[in-house]
Amino acid sequence: MVVMLNLDMILKVTWLVTTVGFAVLLSDYLRLRQQQCTEDTTGRPSNLPDRDHVQQGSSVWCYGDNNTNRTCKFSNLCFSPQYQQFVFFHGEQTVTHGTHNRFQPALVDLSSVPDHNTQYFQYVDLPASALTDFKKVKIYPGTSLIFNRFNPDNLMHVFHDDLLPIYSTLRQITASDFGPFNLNSRLVIMEGWRPGEFIDLYQMFSTEDPIFKQDLLDSGELACFTNAYVGLSKATTWYQYGFKVPQGPKENITVTGMEIRQFTDFVYVRLGIENTGLTETKYIVLFSRRLNRFIVNEVDVTIALAREFDMRVITLSMESHTVPQQIAVIRQASMLIGMHGSFLTLEMFLPPGAVVVELFPYAVNPEHYAPYRTLASLPGMELTYAAWRNTEQQNTITHPDNPWDLGGIAHLDPAEQDAILRSIEVPRHLCCRNPEWLFRIYQDTVVDIPSFLKTVNTAMKDAEANKQGTCGTSTCEEHYEKIYPGQIVDVTCQTVRLSDGHVGLQLSWQPPWNLQYLNAKDTGYEVWIQEQGKASYMPWILPFTSHVFSEGIEAGLDYNVWVRCIVNGTVVGPFADAVQCVLKVHEPQK
Amino acid sequence: MVVMLNLDMILKVTWLVTTVGFAVLLSDYLRLRQQQCTEDTTGRPSNLPDRDHVQQGSSVWCYGDNNTNRTCKFSNLCFSPQYQQFVFFHGEQTVTHGTHNRFQPALVDLSSVPDHNTQYFQYVDLPASALTDFKKVKIYPGTSLIFNRFNPDNLMHVFHDDLLPIYSTLRQITASDFGPFNLNSRLVIMEGWRPGEFIDLYQMFSTEDPIFKQDLLDSGELACFTNAYVGLSKATTWYQYGFKVPQGPKENITVTGMEIRQFTDFVYVRLGIENTGLTETKYIVLFSRRLNRFIVNEVDVTIALAREFDMRVITLSMESHTVPQQIAVIRQASMLIGMHGSFLTLEMFLPPGAVVVELFPYAVNPEHYAPYRTLASLPGMELTYAAWRNTEQQNTITHPDNPWDLGGIAHLDPAEQDAILRSIEVPRHLCCRNPEWLFRIYQDTVVDIPSFLKTVNTAMKDAEANKQGTCGTSTCEEHYEKIYPGQIVDVTCQTVRLSDGHVGLQLSWQPPWNLQYLNAKDTGYEVWIQEQGKASYMPWILPFTSHVFSEGIEAGLDYNVWVRCIVNGTVVGPFADAVQCVLKVHEPQK
Repeated sequence: MVVMLNLDMILKVTWLVTTVGFAVLLSDYLRLRQQQCTEDTTGRPSNLPDRDHVQQGSSVWCYGDNNTNRTCKFSNLCFSPQYQQFVFFHGEQTVTHGTHNRFQPALVDLSSVPDHNTQYFQYVDLPASALTDFKKVKIYPGTSLIFNRFNPDNLMHVFHDDLLPIYSTLRQITASDFGPFNLNSRLVIMEGWRPGEFIDLYQMFSTEDPIFKQDLLDSGELACFTNAYVGLSKATTWYQYGFKVPQGPKENITVTGMEIRQFTDFVYVRLGIENTGLTETKYIVLFSRRLNRFIVNEVDVTIALAREFDMRVITLSMESHTVPQQIAVIRQASMLIGMHGSFLTLEMFLPPGAVVVELFPYAVNPEHYAPYRTLASLPGMELTYAAWRNTEQQNTITHPDNPWDLGGIAHLDPAEQDAILRSIEVPRHLCCRNPEWLFRIYQDTVVDIPSFLKTVNTAMKDAEANKQGTCGTSTCEEHYEKIYPGQIVDVTCQTVRLSDGHVGLQLSWQPPWNLQYLNAKDTGYEVWIQEQGKASYMPWILPFTSHVFSEGIEAGLDYNVWVRCIVNGTVVGPFADAVQCVLKVHEPQK
Repeated sequence: MVVMLNLDMILKVTWLVTTVGFAVLLSDYLRLRQQQCTEDTTGRPSNLPDRDHVQQGSSVWCYGDNNTNRTCKFSNLCFSPQYQQFVFFHGEQTVTHGTHNRFQPALVDLSSVPDHNTQYFQYVDLPASALTDFKKVKIYPGTSLIFNRFNPDNLMHVFHDDLLPIYSTLRQITASDFGPFNLNSRLVIMEGWRPGEFIDLYQMFSTEDPIFKQDLLDSGELACFTNAYVGLSKATTWYQYGFKVPQGPKENITVTGMEIRQFTDFVYVRLGIENTGLTETKYIVLFSRRLNRFIVNEVDVTIALAREFDMRVITLSMESHTVPQQIAVIRQASMLIGMHGSFLTLEMFLPPGAVVVELFPYAVNPEHYAPYRTLASLPGMELTYAAWRNTEQQNTITHPDNPWDLGGIAHLDPAEQDAILRSIEVPRHLCCRNPEWLFRIYQDTVVDIPSFLKTVNTAMKDAEANKQGTCGTSTCEEHYEKIYPGQIVDVTCQTVRLSDGHVGLQLSWQPPWNLQYLNAKDTGYEVWIQEQGKASYMPWILPFTSHVFSEGIEAGLDYNVWVRCIVNGTVVGPFADAVQCVLKVHEPQK
């Protein structure tokens, strides 16, 4: 512990000076440390919580109606290694809010992948008195985030299902006086897999080591988490894997490029990713798969790219580069090219304005497998995405004799095999064992250079056009974070006599006070005028802040008026409170 | 600041010893302090956040679909005294989650009273660059709870709308290693009223003074709250005041007596409420209203009660006792009696087993005005409630000439006045200006002693009976906090040949492991058996953990089986995972 080391240093130095000074100093220092960090902060106490803390009872607060939209915070949530279940102790201080329907089918999802039956979180109820039957209790103080990794061996799953959701969840939990993200919370990883090759990426969220389910099982003690959040935010995910309907972008995507880039900035800092030292200002990254789904003529492709665009082509692979090394290179690249595969998740580290080209084997429709297309197209990502597809059967190399999970089809009926071989496009299908999909996606491809270069050229031109039309990430936040005009103010209404003898209703108001700060190219006002007692109203759209209304207006009647501001045609502010206008016509004095 | 004082002490002591020692020490100490309290805690920093912290942008995370079920947490939420509006700065670190429909009609309610148009919270958007136009920025670090008091002059509103919801909200926010409630957060009270006579009650939640809207207006500076929660939990409320439908218990009450008593225990500690020193083990509290709605013969009632029950009768009033004094007396009372009125909220401080008798003036139906009946009847409160109603018109004293808000009706049409005077019961009505209701509730009453004593006697007998049937608050948590049986385990199925030659399906399982800790007077198992491929299933309820099923069972078919445990007839545990049973009949070897 850093603190203790430092204390030792002080003690040593002071000891050299005088033992009297030391004695006074130590007691003062200890008192000070205790006061400061128990009275003045809400963090870790000097007296760690103990069994008595749990004895008061567990508590849970959940929001949401079902396991998939729910999020839960717990006090004193425990895990029993013996029963391999979470345990909730009902005691004097127990609160349970929002846990209705907790068995239909579960309280909350442990993963950002929604409603998957391997990801259900449940707990078992016990009275607090039962705590005495647990001989050993280990308390985990501070804040813990308890979750499942969905597929920790696949980079797309790691980033999409876990890392971004962990980042988003912990930002919400840990935002504090220190800044938007605090590294003090603890990851508790419960899916039960081994740490895996990407565990370093998970470790960037905390200065503490993650706890794995196996650690809890090995300890044999009841593990109690003082302050535990269960499950991951689904706010940053953009893709669904086809468990219930064929895979595709998820409905109601809320994540923006701005949020993705907050995450990537965090990654640069936490992984210590510096400039690569590359001297080129522009270069292309080509990702090379070394195990399967090859670009057979990868060298030819590399040479063709370098010639065509007069840029260096840097080849990356999982076997030759660590993820941080890959990120460092991608961070400054102009273009990223690769066969469909999880590596392409790293496109999120491309600089704004860059190009992504994804290659697809024969008979695989790029529109149907779009996690990287969707990511690149998020508002604010400012990437240009293009797909290239092998349309020539003679350029594909199939592997019918592979194991089934690498696309082999030898185990199938001959008729079924034949149907797959004759099919020219994999029909849409559910996850995860469709043999035709696996057969096609594990093909190797001889890339047809002319058609490929055409795709890349078009993408580069699109990227140039996009750059002209955008304003650069630093200055055009309003494109993807809606900044709304506020309420209009100072509405006045008065009756005017029109030249044709009719009465008019003159309305005036002042613009919202924040309008001056909005990048408003176009400001309009929507006005609703309702005769009192009527259900219907007349809606108007005006470019002014003052107008005389005469259509449908009659002297002697009362009207309710609502006005709101609309910026750039689509950003609609709130209505101001209704104003009552009484249309009294004063006849001129005689 | 405590820390600085202590630091000064250290410096002084050390200075006396040696200047060399001091120099080393100070730098070490400062480094240590910074590391410890920025890295090791999540509370207040040594370096308070400043304008740069806000410049990074505000963030908001909300759960819920509309203003009434939503709850929001903010980083860097600011308030502009000039515009009297909250301000949200869109900057580099801005996140906005769950703010959809924020103008329909508002983001979130500032009060626990749902969807009241005086309680709407909104903010105005600004780009972070606009921060430079605010000359002075005052940062409020740490955790702030921003809310409106609904009616801070009325004790029922104070407890029901504010104090209990604040307690519930802050428990969720502040539960930590230190215990279930932390006093470090700050109340920011925004309804704009003066502090009021009950402000001491609000101060029990924090060691910091509350901030009022007027404080923010007076300062003239942009006020920015580093970590702000907006609005109050509605989880503890039990009553709706009749804004949309006539008043009554709210739908879907979730609060239990257990949670109310967690709050009252908190109040005892925080208000320093000790034993009263009263020597009586049993006494009756009679609440005396001193301004209106009098019990005209209060002295007679007091004497009659004392004689009938041979107990001391203690009279309390708002004018003669502070709220803590009243609570101290009520905390040990056997019975609480009072005319309908906000004082009766204090019944929550009665000990379990006590009796509440609420009196109603002539023509007021006790069933229609039930905040205190509902509170007393919450599961786990263990109070016995009775209403007494004046049914004799000659025993009521009306005040037709009062101001309208104290029940006067002189301002009404004579026909309307006449109708009110002839009515024998106030019809159900909406809040808040029904003249017949106000007329009747501000009557004084001569209590008919015999009928009143009959009501009280019945209530006392009911309370005795209730005590026999219950088990005391400390041991019967399961009555109001449902402790569910877990999943059954070790399901096995096997085929058996029945004596009649048919086949049977023998199912066995083990009870949930937590069953031994449940106060299970009766344990049953629900078994669903489904022939594979069929949509329908056969449900069974059994008292055993093993059974041979034969009805509808056929050899050679496969069945899916689900089993769950049901305790005491109504507490239904989760189903265990489905088990597949294959009914193979092995003919005996020949």
